[in-house]
Amino acid sequence: MQTPKQIAIIGSGLVGSLLAIYLKRHGHYITVFDRRPDIRTVNFSGRSINLAMSNRGWKSLKVVGIEEEVKKIAIPLDKRAMHLIDTPMYFQKYGKEGEAIWSISRGILNRKMIDFAEEAGVQFRFNEKVWDVNLPETKVFTGETEKSEWKEYKYDLIFGCDGAFSRVRHKMQRRSRFDYSQDFIDVGYKELTIPPNEDGTHKLDKNSFHIWPRGKFMLIAMPNLDGSFTCTLFLPFEGDVSFEKITTKKEAKDFFKTYFPNVRKEIENLTQDFFKNPTSAMVTMKCYPWTYWNKVALVGDSAHAIVPFYGQGMNAGFEDIYELNELILNHGDNWDTIFSMYQEKRKPNADAIAELSYRNFVEMSSKTAYPIFLLQKKIEKWFSKRHPDKWVPVYSRVTFSDRPYEEALKIGDNQEKIMEEIMKTPNIEEIWNSKEVENKILELLKN
Amino acid sequence: MQTPKQIAIIGSGLVGSLLAIYLKRHGHYITVFDRRPDIRTVNFSGRSINLAMSNRGWKSLKVVGIEEEVKKIAIPLDKRAMHLIDTPMYFQKYGKEGEAIWSISRGILNRKMIDFAEEAGVQFRFNEKVWDVNLPETKVFTGETEKSEWKEYKYDLIFGCDGAFSRVRHKMQRRSRFDYSQDFIDVGYKELTIPPNEDGTHKLDKNSFHIWPRGKFMLIAMPNLDGSFTCTLFLPFEGDVSFEKITTKKEAKDFFKTYFPNVRKEIENLTQDFFKNPTSAMVTMKCYPWTYWNKVALVGDSAHAIVPFYGQGMNAGFEDIYELNELILNHGDNWDTIFSMYQEKRKPNADAIAELSYRNFVEMSSKTAYPIFLLQKKIEKWFSKRHPDKWVPVYSRVTFSDRPYEEALKIGDNQEKIMEEIMKTPNIEEIWNSKEVENKILELLKN
Repeated sequence: MQTPKQIAIIGSGLVGSLLAIYLKRHGHYITVFDRRPDIRTVNFSGRSINLAMSNRGWKSLKVVGIEEEVKKIAIPLDKRAMHLIDTPMYFQKYGKEGEAIWSISRGILNRKMIDFAEEAGVQFRFNEKVWDVNLPETKVFTGETEKSEWKEYKYDLIFGCDGAFSRVRHKMQRRSRFDYSQDFIDVGYKELTIPPNEDGTHKLDKNSFHIWPRGKFMLIAMPNLDGSFTCTLFLPFEGDVSFEKITTKKEAKDFFKTYFPNVRKEIENLTQDFFKNPTSAMVTMKCYPWTYWNKVALVGDSAHAIVPFYGQGMNAGFEDIYELNELILNHGDNWDTIFSMYQEKRKPNADAIAELSYRNFVEMSSKTAYPIFLLQKKIEKWFSKRHPDKWVPVYSRVTFSDRPYEEALKIGDNQEKIMEEIMKTPNIEEIWNSKEVENKILELLKN
Repeated sequence: MQTPKQIAIIGSGLVGSLLAIYLKRHGHYITVFDRRPDIRTVNFSGRSINLAMSNRGWKSLKVVGIEEEVKKIAIPLDKRAMHLIDTPMYFQKYGKEGEAIWSISRGILNRKMIDFAEEAGVQFRFNEKVWDVNLPETKVFTGETEKSEWKEYKYDLIFGCDGAFSRVRHKMQRRSRFDYSQDFIDVGYKELTIPPNEDGTHKLDKNSFHIWPRGKFMLIAMPNLDGSFTCTLFLPFEGDVSFEKITTKKEAKDFFKTYFPNVRKEIENLTQDFFKNPTSAMVTMKCYPWTYWNKVALVGDSAHAIVPFYGQGMNAGFEDIYELNELILNHGDNWDTIFSMYQEKRKPNADAIAELSYRNFVEMSSKTAYPIFLLQKKIEKWFSKRHPDKWVPVYSRVTFSDRPYEEALKIGDNQEKIMEEIMKTPNIEEIWNSKEVENKILELLKN
């Protein structure tokens, strides 16, 4: 049985609102601050920025009973649709039968989560920017501007769910012995849209994650409920083929025509979006500690922002909440223990998914061009199918299981080492699916 | 011939005041801001925090003709004095004849540098804290407090010389695609003092850098002009032997008695200082870019703060200024070129000295305990003496040359690889100074 606490959550995004629902269930009084207006009152197309919800996300929603409601606004994708140049489009199944990732609009999901939180009794203070936090006294200061008069609020606990550029973390960062890093990659992204057919159906296969890999850049597309697709173009900021090189409508059209011939019909839309929508940067942000005594904790992107190439950003943030909740169930009122175990347990996993996401970026932007890499992937797939108990691909471990990310990284490293050996086999191109190779992998797995 | 510019330098420390002297020479109008009072009006013992000036530092002072004046307040140290337990104290020469590092008090040097700058016509604004910087408009905002009314100043150029926790960098950091990291080490430090003899002479050899290495911790001492020594105790924050474990006078005395028996006579002073002086943390800070267009640049610790185990922090900052000056001489008014070449040239060297400094910390705190490591060092020394043209130790490259830090790191890595091979030689303990080993090193150096 816990003593009800006065708790402030900074940030009403996905992580902030889910955490509010969880903590409300424990009987605490929750106020969520957000500098932005209520997203439910803001007009947005409902298309921009799509997320891939996978196992860890669903599991975290299930605990508070909102999984089924959220599934209604999500579309299952059970495969990749590969759009290579000069090759007919083909599919790659993600996992076993019934395994899928789910396409969902960040905006629509966020609205729904705030509804749930409000129904549960959470108080929201929108349009109220937190300018400062007093960590030892758990006070929150809000106001019109940095220099205007501020309102002061006092709480028992404060949670920073205010994203990669967190104000709460920023305050912690000024203390001694706070480790911090932010690393941007040289590739930016831009959101583009493929509208629905006139009858409201999808122009591409609806239950696929569409990819147009092009070496140093790529286009992806995820379906929306309204029949449209949200596309993301990942492209270097500078260089031969880059955002800096595309400055006119003609250059944009030529770019799409040259590299993405099968979206030719959408070119007007894509070009228009290209100049309408901003180009955004991507960052890996790491820090430690995540907590201040038994008073303040960072959750989600404020503690660990990652590049999006594994589709795990939101899932990792939701899993933070799931784990935090497990600790609350076991340690009740002992926030000292809860916070210290929370950061100790989650930090290595956050580092692992950051590493895996970055590697996926490197893999997608360079390695996929090499036949030797593609052969290796083919062998892994073949072996995994013959011995599903002995070889679960890292992608499945990350996406369709709830085992720690750290474990997935470690096992993945070992698989990589084994495959390095295998690829040295003479004549591997010919005998890749032979008994000899199979036995060699089985042998190496014993170490 | 350059057009005189209005230039603001934030920070009146060693780097800020030397940069002011340099830029004044080019005919610019210089204002230096510092939130602290004029260090010349502040009472300090003149002992606290000692620096080791080496070749790069002297070279940078020489350009503006203040080398000789500064040498008058410095003491040359041509050797280490090693204080091991159960072994008589012995000396290790630093380099060749005439090579030395110079012990100098940060406070005394800083006073002198501000004198030089003021004589040259630099304007100082002490007790004036910069709260904000407008980067594109090169404006500086100062005031009593963050929320008080601010004064606004407009300049042509702004230099951030405001140290590891730079306000200027802080502003740059909030922009997109700014890479940043701060990593604290688990060891803290505390300044302690050994007073002079009653007749004003030094209690230990004056021309030595004294070290008491103790594995995971160590004590060092550097001489002051007044006969005293400034000691620095490096000790883990937590653990078996650590700052957290020393909380009473008795515990402090026992600590000194057990681990530093030959400073037994100083124990009252050391113990008193131990509780009087703060325990400080050490950080490696990296960032990029260092400049904002042709308007703002970071110099010294604000761009690259390193742990002090190579004694190169100030030297690296002074070398930034030396290099910047070379670029000004070559490119005159073209600050675009100057700033972009400055950061491109210095960044790899700053990263290299950060890495070397961190490695020295690891080396001192762990490796020195292993006989195999000591044997390796002995072999390197022996070989270097026989072939001074073929094997310059990394320490000498860093300390007594002005070749790029990056080169020193690279050559050092190669030397390390060679020594790894050499240490595999059967019976190396017996034949370490044989013709066979000598030839093997010569052979490996050819690759």
